[in-house]
Amino acid sequence: MRIVQVEVGGQPHWGQVEGDVIHFTRGMAGARNGETAPLEGAKLLAPAEPTKIVCVGRNYVNHIKELGNDTGDLPREPGIFLKGPNALANPDESVEYPTWTQNFHYEGELALVIGQRASQLKPDDALGAVLGYTCGLDLTARDLQKPDLQWFRAKAADKFCPLGPWLETQLNPADVRVQLRVNGETRQDGRTSHMIFDVVQILVYITRYVTLEPGDIVLTGTPEGVGPLQKGDVVEVEVDGIGVLKTPIV
Amino acid sequence: MRIVQVEVGGQPHWGQVEGDVIHFTRGMAGARNGETAPLEGAKLLAPAEPTKIVCVGRNYVNHIKELGNDTGDLPREPGIFLKGPNALANPDESVEYPTWTQNFHYEGELALVIGQRASQLKPDDALGAVLGYTCGLDLTARDLQKPDLQWFRAKAADKFCPLGPWLETQLNPADVRVQLRVNGETRQDGRTSHMIFDVVQILVYITRYVTLEPGDIVLTGTPEGVGPLQKGDVVEVEVDGIGVLKTPIV
Repeated sequence: MRIVQVEVGGQPHWGQVEGDVIHFTRGMAGARNGETAPLEGAKLLAPAEPTKIVCVGRNYVNHIKELGNDTGDLPREPGIFLKGPNALANPDESVEYPTWTQNFHYEGELALVIGQRASQLKPDDALGAVLGYTCGLDLTARDLQKPDLQWFRAKAADKFCPLGPWLETQLNPADVRVQLRVNGETRQDGRTSHMIFDVVQILVYITRYVTLEPGDIVLTGTPEGVGPLQKGDVVEVEVDGIGVLKTPIV
Repeated sequence: MRIVQVEVGGQPHWGQVEGDVIHFTRGMAGARNGETAPLEGAKLLAPAEPTKIVCVGRNYVNHIKELGNDTGDLPREPGIFLKGPNALANPDESVEYPTWTQNFHYEGELALVIGQRASQLKPDDALGAVLGYTCGLDLTARDLQKPDLQWFRAKAADKFCPLGPWLETQLNPADVRVQLRVNGETRQDGRTSHMIFDVVQILVYITRYVTLEPGDIVLTGTPEGVGPLQKGDVVEVEVDGIGVLKTPIV
């Protein structure tokens, strides 16, 4: 099933997509309320209501190597960092190239949105806590990651997490293709089966330390091929079985 | 004025304290609704409704030195990191010593809670965005700060941010005393005038990158004297002009 959040009359509304029609629901995962609207022309919003955005860094071997972070050993535990809800951007929403970075990078990722409160998840229960899967763009001020104490400016600034276009509930995240294009040219083309820590391991690890709430987002890491953006670029993140998230850089 | 959040009938309610009486309000900074309750016996909640908790690391020179992080130069910019709302703990609420750290540290701090959406603050407007000031305890798994990629487990785990007991709206944050006691013994005793970056500079810096929302929390850094906790310890953070935040470690 495909779950969307759309803006109607200036207000966000959740719905389920069937064919070309949005069936509105009571909340993110609630029952249908009987109202409908055509999908075409709907203004899509980021399909999440996060209290936090939990991200995995360095989760693909070839991405670790391309950034020169290869110490010879694979990470023994997921490297987790946070963004706040301020980082969200909607599908098709423009993101300004920040004035304060000289190396603004794209990172295309499989993202997931939590459906129910989750703490101390066991491996068998982990995927059951996920409401659905979508495309995430982990925008990064690459030049500030090393000099700053923590990845605050580098990762958590306003609109540094475009997300969408919708949630797909039926995806098996174990082996899907994740691509990123800049102005139509493929820059990243990986598969989630190449993750060092898979989605189940990531969820078990995160919930050992923090409680995930419904609407929270987990970004699962980016494959190799990251690189700089320029003003005027259009970024597309595509995950097979989900769709395309488009983000103009202005 | 003193603003409290208390639990009444299992629900959170905001109010203003006058003498021994809570005058309930419509929301955190709203008008009084005419209802009252005695302050004594009220169950205090953390006085914030954050979308994010923004923290400053290494903001007192002697604290930088005590942790061996002194490189000879003072930080040129505030070192910022994030906790999520899952980190909040209420006044008097017990916090479990985590099984996964062998060096669980206290850090007492002046905290502030934002009253209105704030982005790109100018110095003259910065303090106007603050609703009030309170005591914060930045709990830290010290042994995981260096080995982990980012300070996720070390700083952002559940209940790693006890906050309270209430907001004081009239405080001048430029020079107040911040003390921390463990089992009644003073371990930290600093003044906010010793901060490397004062509250105005912190707010200007943060809002250059992220938009702060009403209810968001800013922790302003800890003075020297940090150290390890044991099960059974009772931690008290006291900020002059505000009050005492008490946290049992169990």
